[in-house]
Amino acid sequence: MYRFISELYPICRSITGQGIRDTFGRIQQHIPLSITAVPSGTQVFDWTVPLEWNIRDAYVADRQGVRVIDFKQSNLHVVSYSTPIAARMPLRELKAHLFTLPDHPDWIPYRTSYYKESWGFCLSHRQYLDLRDEDYDVVIDSSLKPGHLTYGEYYLPGDTAEEVLISCHACHPSLCNDNLSGIAVATFLAKSLQTSSRRRYSYRFLFLPVTIGAITWLALNQQKVSNIKHGFVLTGVGDEGGFTYKKSRVGHADIDEAFAHVLRHSGESFEVTEFIPYGYDERQYGSPGFNLPVGCFMRRANGGYPEYHTSGDNLDFVKPTSLSRSLQVVQSVVEVLESDRGYVNTSPYCEPQLGKRGLYRTIGGNVTGRSAEMALLWVLNLSDGDHTLLKIAERAGLPFLTIKLAADALEGQGLLRPAG
Amino acid sequence: MYRFISELYPICRSITGQGIRDTFGRIQQHIPLSITAVPSGTQVFDWTVPLEWNIRDAYVADRQGVRVIDFKQSNLHVVSYSTPIAARMPLRELKAHLFTLPDHPDWIPYRTSYYKESWGFCLSHRQYLDLRDEDYDVVIDSSLKPGHLTYGEYYLPGDTAEEVLISCHACHPSLCNDNLSGIAVATFLAKSLQTSSRRRYSYRFLFLPVTIGAITWLALNQQKVSNIKHGFVLTGVGDEGGFTYKKSRVGHADIDEAFAHVLRHSGESFEVTEFIPYGYDERQYGSPGFNLPVGCFMRRANGGYPEYHTSGDNLDFVKPTSLSRSLQVVQSVVEVLESDRGYVNTSPYCEPQLGKRGLYRTIGGNVTGRSAEMALLWVLNLSDGDHTLLKIAERAGLPFLTIKLAADALEGQGLLRPAG
Amino acid sequence: MYRFISELYPICRSITGQGIRDTFGRIQQHIPLSITAVPSGTQVFDWTVPLEWNIRDAYVADRQGVRVIDFKQSNLHVVSYSTPIAARMPLRELKAHLFTLPDHPDWIPYRTSYYKESWGFCLSHRQYLDLRDEDYDVVIDSSLKPGHLTYGEYYLPGDTAEEVLISCHACHPSLCNDNLSGIAVATFLAKSLQTSSRRRYSYRFLFLPVTIGAITWLALNQQKVSNIKHGFVLTGVGDEGGFTYKKSRVGHADIDEAFAHVLRHSGESFEVTEFIPYGYDERQYGSPGFNLPVGCFMRRANGGYPEYHTSGDNLDFVKPTSLSRSLQVVQSVVEVLESDRGYVNTSPYCEPQLGKRGLYRTIGGNVTGRSAEMALLWVLNLSDGDHTLLKIAERAGLPFLTIKLAADALEGQGLLRPAG
Repeated sequence: MYRFISELYPICRSITGQGIRDTFGRIQQHIPLSITAVPSGTQVFDWTVPLEWNIRDAYVADRQGVRVIDFKQSNLHVVSYSTPIAARMPLRELKAHLFTLPDHPDWIPYRTSYYKESWGFCLSHRQYLDLRDEDYDVVIDSSLKPGHLTYGEYYLPGDTAEEVLISCHACHPSLCNDNLSGIAVATFLAKSLQTSSRRRYSYRFLFLPVTIGAITWLALNQQKVSNIKHGFVLTGVGDEGGFTYKKSRVGHADIDEAFAHVLRHSGESFEVTEFIPYGYDERQYGSPGFNLPVGCFMRRANGGYPEYHTSGDNLDFVKPTSLSRSLQVVQSVVEVLESDRGYVNTSPYCEPQLGKRGLYRTIGGNVTGRSAEMALLWVLNLSDGDHTLLKIAERAGLPFLTIKLAADALEGQGLLRPAG
Repeated sequence: MYRFISELYPICRSITGQGIRDTFGRIQQHIPLSITAVPSGTQVFDWTVPLEWNIRDAYVADRQGVRVIDFKQSNLHVVSYSTPIAARMPLRELKAHLFTLPDHPDWIPYRTSYYKESWGFCLSHRQYLDLRDEDYDVVIDSSLKPGHLTYGEYYLPGDTAEEVLISCHACHPSLCNDNLSGIAVATFLAKSLQTSSRRRYSYRFLFLPVTIGAITWLALNQQKVSNIKHGFVLTGVGDEGGFTYKKSRVGHADIDEAFAHVLRHSGESFEVTEFIPYGYDERQYGSPGFNLPVGCFMRRANGGYPEYHTSGDNLDFVKPTSLSRSLQVVQSVVEVLESDRGYVNTSPYCEPQLGKRGLYRTIGGNVTGRSAEMALLWVLNLSDGDHTLLKIAERAGLPFLTIKLAADALEGQGLLRPAG
Repeated sequence: MYRFISELYPICRSITGQGIRDTFGRIQQHIPLSITAVPSGTQVFDWTVPLEWNIRDAYVADRQGVRVIDFKQSNLHVVSYSTPIAARMPLRELKAHLFTLPDHPDWIPYRTSYYKESWGFCLSHRQYLDLRDEDYDVVIDSSLKPGHLTYGEYYLPGDTAEEVLISCHACHPSLCNDNLSGIAVATFLAKSLQTSSRRRYSYRFLFLPVTIGAITWLALNQQKVSNIKHGFVLTGVGDEGGFTYKKSRVGHADIDEAFAHVLRHSGESFEVTEFIPYGYDERQYGSPGFNLPVGCFMRRANGGYPEYHTSGDNLDFVKPTSLSRSLQVVQSVVEVLESDRGYVNTSPYCEPQLGKRGLYRTIGGNVTGRSAEMALLWVLNLSDGDHTLLKIAERAGLPFLTIKLAADALEGQGLLRPAG
C-alpha cells in the first residue's frame, strides 16, 4: 500500500481533469475499476457538474527569469481550479493571490477555488518572506472548459444484492494521508475481497471527487441506494494517530456497532464520535433524504493534525504499519458484517450437556479455554432470536471471532440453527 | 425591579387580607391585573378558603410600657394569622408563644399558623435573651373573620389559545427574595411581552397566596387548564446564587428542555434538578390529576440559604444585577418557546450548494463564521420532521438563537419550510 | 443458623447418595420437606440422571500401614464420584490422581468427577510434599450404581398460586459458605414465613444437587414454571464480605429491583452485577427456554475468595452475624415482594390537606418527621396507576417501609385505594 501511495503521490489531481483519470488508471492495475464520465453542466440535485480543469505548468518568475514559485516542484503551489493567467505584475499586486501558513513556515498550504473563478499560488512562508519588491512574471497555463467529471466504481457481487459501500475521495493533489491512504486501503480491501470464496454481501467501492463526486453518484444512482445496508467513508488512515470512527447519521446502525466492537478489541487507542454534518462524504450519504448507514473511518480526524491540507501531509507522514493496521480493522469489520446473524438454541430448556460432546475443547484458534467456555455459554444463553452474534459478543465482552467460533461449534453439534 | 421590590417590602402580606390586596394595587401600576375575590368558606378541592386575616398593631410591652417587641418595627414580629389577644402575663407564660433562631441571633424568623388558630411573636434571639423575668402586656390587634381570598391575574392573548403560565406567590410579608423577587421579575416580563409585536402563545400571569391560592385558581379554572402548554413558578430569583431550575413532574416537557438549554448557554453556574413534590406551587400544578408541564425557576432553591424565611431575606439580600439576569433568562426561555418549531429541508438529497447563495455570510448578529456555517449544516441535516430547532440546537451544541438565525436564512432562500 | 451449619458440616454430600439424603433429614427437623427420588437413567432435557454414588471409606496408606491420606479426617480428601479402587502402587503412579493447591499449601481442594469415571485424592500441598517415594496402598471403598437422585422441596401456599422460588444447592461435602450457608438461611426464611399470618405469594423452597438437580426439577415440573413470578438462588451468604446480588437474565425483573432497593438501604457494602450464564443454578432458570426472573444472592461471589472450593471454607469462615444479616436482607426482599403494589390517589387534583387529618403525625415506626412527610407527598404525587410503591420508594430515595407506612396511613384516611 505504501508503494502504491508513492506511485500516486506526484500526480496533480483535482475534482476533474487528467490527474484524477490517471489515478483511476493506476487503481485499474489492481482492480477492474469502471469509469463514469459525466459532462460539465449536468444538473445533480442542487449542484451543477463544473467545467473540467487541466493544468500544464505554472510559475512565478523574477526579473532574472528564475522561477521563485514553480508548479513543477510541487503541485500544491497552484490553487486548484486556478484560471489561466500570463501577466507581469509588481509584488504588491501579486500578494493578493499568495497564500502561506505563517505558523508553519516550511509548509505549502493546499487551497482550492472550485466554485468561484480566481487564481492563486500557495507557498511556504519562508519563500514568501524571501520575495523581493519587484515585478514578476506570473503564468498559469491551465484550462477550464466543458469536459467531464469522472469517478471510478468497482462492484463486487455477492450472494445477495444487499451491499456494503466503501467510498474514498480521490481529488486531492500531493496529499498522502488525506486522500491517498484511503485509496490504497480501499484498493487492497477490494483485492482481498475478490479472492474470498464466498460473500454474503455485494461490495461497491467508489473513488470520487469529494462532495460533487458523491452528489453526482447519488443523483445518477438513486435506484441503487436502497441496496446499501452498510457503508463507510475511508480516508486519513495512514498517519500514526489512534483510530477514529465517526458514526453514521443513523447513530446505531450495524456498521456503527461493528466498528465500535472491532476497535474495542483492536488493542489500539481509538475514539468513536457522533455524526456531525461536517467532514467528508458521509455528509452526503447522511443527508436527510438518504440517511444511509454510512460512517467514516479515519485515524486522526480531518483537521485534527497540523499537517492536514499542507505539504506536511507527505510520504513521511504516512507509515506502512499504520496502513496495514487500518486495513486489518476494515477487514475485521467486513468479517463481522459477513458473519453476523442470529441463531436459535435448539435445546433452550436448561443448558445442554457440553461435556459429553467434548465441546469445551473444540474451539480452535487462539481462544483460550476460559473464553471459549464462556463463549459457548453466552451463545447458548442469548440465541433466542433477539440477539445476533455481534450483540452477544458485546454483552459477553468477548471478541466477535470467539463468539463466531463458538456458534460454529454449536451449530456443528446441532445445538444451534440459524434464526429466521 | 429593585425599586419595585423596595416599594413592596414594607407591606404586611398574608394569604388573605389588606396586605396582599395592596400588593396587587402596586402591580396594577405596571400591568392591568384583574383581581378575583373568593369568599371564605368556599370549598376548593380538598381545602376550604380560610377566614380573612387583618392586623393593625401588635406588641409586647414591659412594665414601663416600652414595646420590647413591636409589629411597627417589622411585620415579621407577629406569627401570620395570629388570633387577637390583649393580656398581661409573666415571661414564663409568654415564652410558649415566642419564636427565635438561636443559630442566627440577629434575625427574626418568619412563622405562620394559617390552618390552626393560635398566636405568637417572632423575635431575634438577642432580643429574647434581653427579656427580663417580669410581667408583660401582650397585644395583637388582629381580626380573623369571614372575608375573601384574593388573587391577581393578567392574561395576555396571543395568536393561539395555547398558553404559557407564569405563577408567583405574593403572600409573604417583608421577605425580598422569597416572594418579591418573583413578583418583580414576573411583572417586568409581562411588561416586555405586552410590547412585543406578535405572540404565538397567550400568557397568563398569576399572583397568588401560596398553596391555597394555586389550589383555588385550579379549582375555579379547571376548564382552562388544558390550554396550558408550558409554565413555570417564579420565585427566589434575586439573590447572588447560581440558577436552579426544578423540572416539571413531566420531566422532559418542552419547558424543561428550554430552561436547561438556556441555562447551559447562560455563562452562569446553574443546576437542573428533578421534580420533587415539595417546594412551591409546582406541587399543585404537578399533582397527578393535573400533571401540568410547570417547572420552577429560582436562584438558590428554597431552604438552600440561611436567610430563607428570616428577616435576613431583606433589601440587602437581593441585587439589581441578579434580578436583571434572571429576567434575561426567562425572556430567553420565552423566545425559545415562541420560536421553537420543526422545519422540513426542501432539498433533502445531499447538501444544497450554500456557497452559490452566499448563505455562509448571511447570518447576522454576533454569530461567528464557523458557528454560523455549522448551524446551517445542522439545520439542513436535521430538518427531517423529527427535530425541532431546540432539539437541533441541543444536538449541535449551539445556542438556540444561532440555530434560529440559520433557519431564518435558509427559509429565506426557500431551502426550508415549516413542518406540519 | 450457625449451629445448624455445624451439624451439617461433617456429612459427606454429593449430587446423589446417602449424604444428601441425610442432609434433607436434618432440614426436615425444621421444615416439612418433601423428598423426591428420581431413578438413575431418567432423561431430563439434554441430561441423564447419573448413577448413585456412595462411599464408606477411602485412604492412602504407607508401607507401615499409616493412613497418610484419610477420608475419615476430611471428606474433601476423595474426589467426589471416585470409582472404587483397591491397589498398591508406587508414588509416581499415584501422583496422577493427587490434587493440591500449591498457592495455599494448608488447604485441601474440593474436586469432583461426576460425568467422567475416574478416581482421585485431594490433599494439602504440605501433605503432598511429605510423601516418600515408596509404594502405597490405595483404597476407595465407594459404589457407583443405579439408584436415585433426590431433592427436597417445601411448598408453602399463599393467597395466590403465583410463587416465589428460593433455590439452594445441597450437594457439596464439608464446605460451609458454598452450600451450607444457603441451606441454613433458606431453612430459617421458610420457618419465619410459615408463621406469618398471611402471604400474598406461595413460596417454593428447593434443596438440590447443583446443575443436574435444577435441570431435573425443571424437567419434571414444567407445568409449574409459569407460576414463578420471582425467585433467587441463595448461597455463599455466611462469609464476612459485602453483599452481591447477581441479576436475573431478565435484567429488570421485580426481584432485581427489590434486591437492589433493599441492598441500597441495608447500610452495608454491596454490589449488583449483571447476569452472566455462569455461576449457580440461575444459569438453568435463566436458560432461554425458561427465562425466569430468578437472580442469585450471595455475599462474595462464587470464586471471589481464595477459600472457595477448599477446606478453607470451614466453620471459621462463616460467621453467625453474617448469616443473620443475610437472612434480614432476604426477609426484607420478601416484605417488598409481598407489599409492593400500585395505588390510586383518590384526591388527585392538588394536594389533599394533610394537616387537618393529622396525617403528618400518624406515621409510626422509626420514621423521622421529615421523611414521613416526604413519603406522604411522594405517595400521593405518584399514585397515578403507573408507579408501584417500590418505584415510588426508588424515586423518593426513601426505604420501601417508609413508603409503605405512608401508603397505609393514606389508605386509612381514604386518600388512596389499591389500583386495578
